[in-house]
Amino acid sequence: MVAFPRLKKKKRRRSTLNRSGVGAPPGLLVADPEAVPSRLSVYGIGDGRFHKQVGIDLDEALALRTEWPVIWLDCSGLSDIGLVERIGAAFNLHPLALEDVVNTEQRPKCDPYQDHAFVVARMLDPTGNSEQLSVFFGEGFVLTFQERPGDAFDPVRKRIEKGAPRLHAGHSDYLAYALIDAVIDAYFPVVDRQTGRIDELEDEIFDDLDAVQVPEIHGLRRDMLNLRRVLRPTRDALNALLRLDRPFLREETKTYFGDVQDHCDQLIDLNDTYRDTAAGLIDLHMTLSAAATNEVINLLTIISTIFIPLGFLAGLWGMNFNPEISDWNMPLTQSPYGYPIALAVMTVIALGLLAYFKKKRWI
Amino acid sequence: MVAFPRLKKKKRRRSTLNRSGVGAPPGLLVADPEAVPSRLSVYGIGDGRFHKQVGIDLDEALALRTEWPVIWLDCSGLSDIGLVERIGAAFNLHPLALEDVVNTEQRPKCDPYQDHAFVVARMLDPTGNSEQLSVFFGEGFVLTFQERPGDAFDPVRKRIEKGAPRLHAGHSDYLAYALIDAVIDAYFPVVDRQTGRIDELEDEIFDDLDAVQVPEIHGLRRDMLNLRRVLRPTRDALNALLRLDRPFLREETKTYFGDVQDHCDQLIDLNDTYRDTAAGLIDLHMTLSAAATNEVINLLTIISTIFIPLGFLAGLWGMNFNPEISDWNMPLTQSPYGYPIALAVMTVIALGLLAYFKKKRWI
Amino acid sequence: MVAFPRLKKKKRRRSTLNRSGVGAPPGLLVADPEAVPSRLSVYGIGDGRFHKQVGIDLDEALALRTEWPVIWLDCSGLSDIGLVERIGAAFNLHPLALEDVVNTEQRPKCDPYQDHAFVVARMLDPTGNSEQLSVFFGEGFVLTFQERPGDAFDPVRKRIEKGAPRLHAGHSDYLAYALIDAVIDAYFPVVDRQTGRIDELEDEIFDDLDAVQVPEIHGLRRDMLNLRRVLRPTRDALNALLRLDRPFLREETKTYFGDVQDHCDQLIDLNDTYRDTAAGLIDLHMTLSAAATNEVINLLTIISTIFIPLGFLAGLWGMNFNPEISDWNMPLTQSPYGYPIALAVMTVIALGLLAYFKKKRWI
Amino acid sequence: MVAFPRLKKKKRRRSTLNRSGVGAPPGLLVADPEAVPSRLSVYGIGDGRFHKQVGIDLDEALALRTEWPVIWLDCSGLSDIGLVERIGAAFNLHPLALEDVVNTEQRPKCDPYQDHAFVVARMLDPTGNSEQLSVFFGEGFVLTFQERPGDAFDPVRKRIEKGAPRLHAGHSDYLAYALIDAVIDAYFPVVDRQTGRIDELEDEIFDDLDAVQVPEIHGLRRDMLNLRRVLRPTRDALNALLRLDRPFLREETKTYFGDVQDHCDQLIDLNDTYRDTAAGLIDLHMTLSAAATNEVINLLTIISTIFIPLGFLAGLWGMNFNPEISDWNMPLTQSPYGYPIALAVMTVIALGLLAYFKKKRWI
Amino acid sequence: MVAFPRLKKKKRRRSTLNRSGVGAPPGLLVADPEAVPSRLSVYGIGDGRFHKQVGIDLDEALALRTEWPVIWLDCSGLSDIGLVERIGAAFNLHPLALEDVVNTEQRPKCDPYQDHAFVVARMLDPTGNSEQLSVFFGEGFVLTFQERPGDAFDPVRKRIEKGAPRLHAGHSDYLAYALIDAVIDAYFPVVDRQTGRIDELEDEIFDDLDAVQVPEIHGLRRDMLNLRRVLRPTRDALNALLRLDRPFLREETKTYFGDVQDHCDQLIDLNDTYRDTAAGLIDLHMTLSAAATNEVINLLTIISTIFIPLGFLAGLWGMNFNPEISDWNMPLTQSPYGYPIALAVMTVIALGLLAYFKKKRWI
Repeated sequence: MVAFPRLKKKKRRRSTLNRSGVGAPPGLLVADPEAVPSRLSVYGIGDGRFHKQVGIDLDEALALRTEWPVIWLDCSGLSDIGLVERIGAAFNLHPLALEDVVNTEQRPKCDPYQDHAFVVARMLDPTGNSEQLSVFFGEGFVLTFQERPGDAFDPVRKRIEKGAPRLHAGHSDYLAYALIDAVIDAYFPVVDRQTGRIDELEDEIFDDLDAVQVPEIHGLRRDMLNLRRVLRPTRDALNALLRLDRPFLREETKTYFGDVQDHCDQLIDLNDTYRDTAAGLIDLHMTLSAAATNEVINLLTIISTIFIPLGFLAGLWGMNFNPEISDWNMPLTQSPYGYPIALAVMTVIALGLLAYFKKKRWI
Repeated sequence: MVAFPRLKKKKRRRSTLNRSGVGAPPGLLVADPEAVPSRLSVYGIGDGRFHKQVGIDLDEALALRTEWPVIWLDCSGLSDIGLVERIGAAFNLHPLALEDVVNTEQRPKCDPYQDHAFVVARMLDPTGNSEQLSVFFGEGFVLTFQERPGDAFDPVRKRIEKGAPRLHAGHSDYLAYALIDAVIDAYFPVVDRQTGRIDELEDEIFDDLDAVQVPEIHGLRRDMLNLRRVLRPTRDALNALLRLDRPFLREETKTYFGDVQDHCDQLIDLNDTYRDTAAGLIDLHMTLSAAATNEVINLLTIISTIFIPLGFLAGLWGMNFNPEISDWNMPLTQSPYGYPIALAVMTVIALGLLAYFKKKRWI
Repeated sequence: MVAFPRLKKKKRRRSTLNRSGVGAPPGLLVADPEAVPSRLSVYGIGDGRFHKQVGIDLDEALALRTEWPVIWLDCSGLSDIGLVERIGAAFNLHPLALEDVVNTEQRPKCDPYQDHAFVVARMLDPTGNSEQLSVFFGEGFVLTFQERPGDAFDPVRKRIEKGAPRLHAGHSDYLAYALIDAVIDAYFPVVDRQTGRIDELEDEIFDDLDAVQVPEIHGLRRDMLNLRRVLRPTRDALNALLRLDRPFLREETKTYFGDVQDHCDQLIDLNDTYRDTAAGLIDLHMTLSAAATNEVINLLTIISTIFIPLGFLAGLWGMNFNPEISDWNMPLTQSPYGYPIALAVMTVIALGLLAYFKKKRWI
Repeated sequence: MVAFPRLKKKKRRRSTLNRSGVGAPPGLLVADPEAVPSRLSVYGIGDGRFHKQVGIDLDEALALRTEWPVIWLDCSGLSDIGLVERIGAAFNLHPLALEDVVNTEQRPKCDPYQDHAFVVARMLDPTGNSEQLSVFFGEGFVLTFQERPGDAFDPVRKRIEKGAPRLHAGHSDYLAYALIDAVIDAYFPVVDRQTGRIDELEDEIFDDLDAVQVPEIHGLRRDMLNLRRVLRPTRDALNALLRLDRPFLREETKTYFGDVQDHCDQLIDLNDTYRDTAAGLIDLHMTLSAAATNEVINLLTIISTIFIPLGFLAGLWGMNFNPEISDWNMPLTQSPYGYPIALAVMTVIALGLLAYFKKKRWI
Repeated sequence: MVAFPRLKKKKRRRSTLNRSGVGAPPGLLVADPEAVPSRLSVYGIGDGRFHKQVGIDLDEALALRTEWPVIWLDCSGLSDIGLVERIGAAFNLHPLALEDVVNTEQRPKCDPYQDHAFVVARMLDPTGNSEQLSVFFGEGFVLTFQERPGDAFDPVRKRIEKGAPRLHAGHSDYLAYALIDAVIDAYFPVVDRQTGRIDELEDEIFDDLDAVQVPEIHGLRRDMLNLRRVLRPTRDALNALLRLDRPFLREETKTYFGDVQDHCDQLIDLNDTYRDTAAGLIDLHMTLSAAATNEVINLLTIISTIFIPLGFLAGLWGMNFNPEISDWNMPLTQSPYGYPIALAVMTVIALGLLAYFKKKRWI
């Protein structure tokens, strides 16, 4: 259960939602005090060639827009509100969308605008930490905003650099698809680990029932609840994208987005099934624990029920009534065969009780 | 658990629903006997200027209507039925809507009328107390009715007074949006405290299981149930607003209302997830309590099972059969090594039982 | 728990559903053998005047139809099948609708016919007993059929007699609305009592946990389940009414029916929330009971675990091995400090066990 | 619980579903080896006259088709596959529909064909056994196939023979309605018995809690689950029928089918409510059992906690330390008032413990 | 419970979902390292004749396409990625579809393309192991891809070889139907075994309650959860197929696909009902176990409560207060009738307690 405290810590943070936005005017950008410094990187892509520049200045990046069929501008870290605003102005982004970029506890969603689409998703790293990813794409450009450096896009970068034909065909929608697909693909190892752990816990419960398993199942169930909170709106966002009718989103790319939606459905199915399984495991744990307790109580009852009456008899014959005063007192103790008779009586009682328990199937 | 009785008291009150309306003709306004005295305040807004007047007379307020592009008339306290009726007459409000204003246990909803929209919402203060907010907005005016002085609108007032351009553009729909947005924003601290408390309780359960945690979880779950009862219809009301086709509600303002709906969805998601988590915590508590009881019962069984038979043996040798009458009585007690033999027998029995428990994994 | 048996009795009766209709041809009216004698009463309404007659003959009542803009014919008690059939013939009612009038276990519903609408609702009296109300309304007439004398309509009667303008405007749809609104309004005190009792039970559980609370919660939950069985179809019926397009149902009256539907939604919300709360209370009760049992078992274990070993030792030193035969027998008992040593050993054991329990947090 | 094994046996059979169809080509009819011999009976109906013939040959029956406005051909028992195929050919039935007739584990459904409708329902007898009923109806004919002789149609037969006008009006759709209505009506006694039994069990649980009630509730809940499995698709089938647009199904008959659907809704409502109640009863049983156990454990604890320490004291004073060797040994036993002091000490301890239990509200 | 480990193993494997696809470009085919060698087999079908060839080369198979009205190309084993790609090129299949063929953890689905439909289903063998089946069908061809040799198609092969007219009519859609129908038919024995086992377990629980039944019910419930995960999307896929409007899918074949959908509905109904029943069985098991424990605890309490006080009395009279020092010490022990009096007192106490238990209905 090493992973458990970390998981809780992660959730703790997630619950401080939307704080900077409370009471502020809409569209006013306020940086999260814990935000990481912003850093721009840009790819210009087209015709098998590409230009990559990390740590670029915004104006330089915008200049590339005219030179390349598609540019991908990525902003890691959201502390520089001014930069975000300037990007917004350059690409004509809606103030509410920019506010959503900066307040990084948004639900995944897809907001259609006239000349671009805005998609919010959550990006998981292999350890299960998540950050918000905001994607804008329109004719000739894709913008991505992420909370921290480090992302799920390396496979896409490699394919750009290898000159993958579909990425170099000059359509920004396919690039946006590739990025979002990479984000969803990164969910699979996390879900795989969750479901695998539940499968293992099921074995462990049958092998060695232990109270320590309960918090872990509870923690997994909770992580899966949190994941569902992300997956369902992501699916809805992809659905909204599929129903979008804009020139910058071609029908053939929608086929690809449909494939991402299939992956989402698969994840939701697994999430649903395994959350249900986890709930079943807690019930199973409780039932098996109760069964173990019953076994213990049975033993206690059998031992007590046999020896308490016998002990009483022994106590009876241990009483100090004076046999010398009258023959009424302690008669058997003064008889020559008193002791063997007493032992015989006790044996008969014990055997009788054992037979009764046998009949009741308690032993 | 200081907060607990207060929460219950709040709910108690909420359940005395709609009382004044039972059996009364529709549209007949009856003041809640506990209603707070009414007080009007008004803002005239436009072109960067504004006029603010608190405790104004209705006729004066209505006079401002012709002078300013947008007026915002706020009525705090609903004891003055006559005032509400006169406002209704002045703005051509439907009697049923006025009835809903006065009976302050309405579900959040949006009723469209020909020349204005009527929105009912619930306003939470930071301690979680709620009051009904009724908003009417049409061409050039926004009316708000609230149960008590004290509201979530201070950020909006500040922005009006600072001359925020969108608020001064002369459109009442944007002002209505700003007010409703401020109301929904005020839910976040409340939800944040609920979810944070559940996270803490989870830690407490693992750290120090105590029966006192159960009522608190129950209370939180109940508060969240009550919140859901408000959130779901609020979302539906916003949805109805988004589908409304009226000249006084512009398409661009709908984008803003869509943002409020996103916030609602976020709150509902959190509410659903954490209610589910709270239910899981109660199960967890029960399972861990059962595990603790099992441990105690195990100890009881082990001690009893070992010492009850030994005690019986001691009792056996403590019986007062007269050894002088015959050699059958109490033979071992008269042997020189009887006592060490007895102790040895008891030790063997005790070790045997311990080995049995060890094998059964009970110790 | 005085109310409990009555509630069960009520439900028992409700389950003998539709009996008279089984196997009978559709439209054949068979009186319920327990039906109450029928009695007609009529109101002629219009232009501020009204004519009221109780215990009227059907032909007289029909004669009023030509004289008054709107007549309201109420039939209390359904034993006179012939009367129901004659009313059906006079107002051109469908045989299936008449069958539903007489078989008083119908689900609430709204059946639209060409020249009238047929609404089935259930009327609750303040003690929670229910009866079926069948309402027909068309151009110029409203018919109501109820199982028993005594109804929720007194507020409407008073308003007719006071000359309320909307009731006297000559539209039957508004009168039908007023009657149905009065029926739904009568649900509020019942729901209020249920929710109030649940709030009280929550307090009682925290104050003084008692097994007797469980059946009461169960009974309340069951009453609320039965109420939901009425509320949901009532809401659907009102919805069907709102979507109805007939000349005898004006758009402006639909606004009023929409208000009734709002009340229904409010009742359903409360019902859902409190049924959920009641289920939570049963869990809470079980958890707190288990906690109480655990406390008792803990005490039992502590006392047993301390005194059973000590008792064994006392028994050991109470054995009757003969110390005179050899020094091996009962050595300590013959030592001058044997007794204080024995007491000291016992004290050490007891303190050691107490320290162990302290460490385990059992005391 | 006499009825219980029978109910289980019934279910067992139901689960051997669709066996003959596995791996067979579609439309190939394979008789169930347990099928009952087929027997045709026919009614020719029209204009107040009717012709009834039981055990008729198919060709004779088809000959009646030209003579009578409506014929009703009923086939009881499905072992004669050839007969079913010849009927199918004569009435132009789809091979898949015939397959569904013969494989008697179909879900209730309604399949529309060009010139007839095909409805599958399940017919319950009063003891709760069910058989599949397949109904085809088109212009001038109604066909019914049932698994066994014995059905719910006797009321319809009587009405035909009495010359009921609507049945004699020459429309096959009304006859089909009358038959399906009779089938649904036959559900009411079964549901009535189930709900009545649950009401009784609730009383029994309060009167005399017994573990034997649990399996019966479980069995009832299971029967109701199975019934729901039939009711929901039956409702859907009736809904499909209501939306069907074919000349052989008149609008006015749809009103009647709507009435059957109302009955279905009523049954589903009851089924839902009582299944929920049954689940609540199991919880209630568990809670009350736990309460009873708690009471027993309380008694055990009180008795043990009082007498175990007292017994220890008695044992202490029963030890055989030799008082003659030193004054340290067993001092009180040699004092003249030792015995009354010991009794007094014990009484004080017992009273102290009783006071403690009183304070803790355990007694 | 022999079957249990196997079932778990199966699930373990299922959870390693989609692994090869993570991070890879869309449409890039990567063979599962555990994939079985690929083997083609082909049927040419038409006009009562057929040509069958197993282990054929792809080019030979494609050559048959021109000779026969319909060809069915089956590829068992998916290790040969090149072969899959060449088939994709020959039949103009979308790269994403081919990726789904190779990544064998897809959800069942139906993707429509312009000139063919793509259906993913899961094929169960009689032991409950599953493999992915990918079906493409368009004008004149059906392609099937399966993970391993061995499938559910033998009934279809036999019907082709017997010259079944509908299969030889030259329509690929009917062949696709026949194959998918065979796949769904193969679910019935698996579901039948699951439901039959639950029925048996219900009997076993009543006959001989044993903790070992709980894991088996849990395992069955889990298998049924996994089956539902397949059944629901299969139903949706069939629904999508029914709504498809393409020349290669004729209306009359849709009737047949509707029949497959009916079978799916039947399986889903059974799955839902029996999963609910299995959950009920776990509750039942817990309740009956608790009842058994209660019985044991009752016995323990009765025995303890009777004998512990009696034992205390015996101990009291066994104390060694010196009666010779004063008459206050041990008075009754020195009386001639002390012993019978003591026995009488004990008997009275025992009978009193038994009467008390009788009154409390504990014995």
